[in-house]
Amino acid sequence: MIQHTVSFALRHPADSPEEQAFLADAAAALTGIPGVENFRISDQVSPQSAHRFQFAMDFADAETYAAYNTHPDHVAFVQTRWVPEVESFQELDLVPRG
Amino acid sequence: MIQHTVSFALRHPADSPEEQAFLADAAAALTGIPGVENFRISDQVSPQSAHRFQFAMDFADAETYAAYNTHPDHVAFVQTRWVPEVESFQELDLVPRG
Repeated sequence: MIQHTVSFALRHPADSPEEQAFLADAAAALTGIPGVENFRISDQVSPQSAHRFQFAMDFADAETYAAYNTHPDHVAFVQTRWVPEVESFQELDLVPRG
Repeated sequence: MIQHTVSFALRHPADSPEEQAFLADAAAALTGIPGVENFRISDQVSPQSAHRFQFAMDFADAETYAAYNTHPDHVAFVQTRWVPEVESFQELDLVPRG
């Protein structure tokens, strides 16, 4: 299992309608892509990071994750929403031990 | 619930005995501190980050997390192992939505 995560900050003001629309639209777009399991949104609350949100999702294996990355719905979401609306981000992909 | 996470890179060579000792000793030290739930170690495998590991743990609430941060066993671990052995790190604290 691979847990794909990305923490990020948006260009939108905190608690704005644009922020809420981005989160809702992202969930709708990404959970429809084959292989995405257990999609969740978290608030990032540590003052050690400027990122305000995190998306996390699980994939059964590396091949399923690779197929997600190149899926047309993912590519379209990145181009039309992620790039214009996200100010900064950091991906971490985690494989639990033991 | 607050999920505390920290991704990091060690000064030790990959797959060295020193690396394995750090991970094992961290697990032993941190899981003994009151309030730490569901401690897990993951390999960080995204090429988008130089960090090679992540620790994650859950706390029931902000007060329990704050008590962990100031617990003498945590402070001692940071001083004697974390600072000298960790090259870089990033904390993220996550509160799941919904």
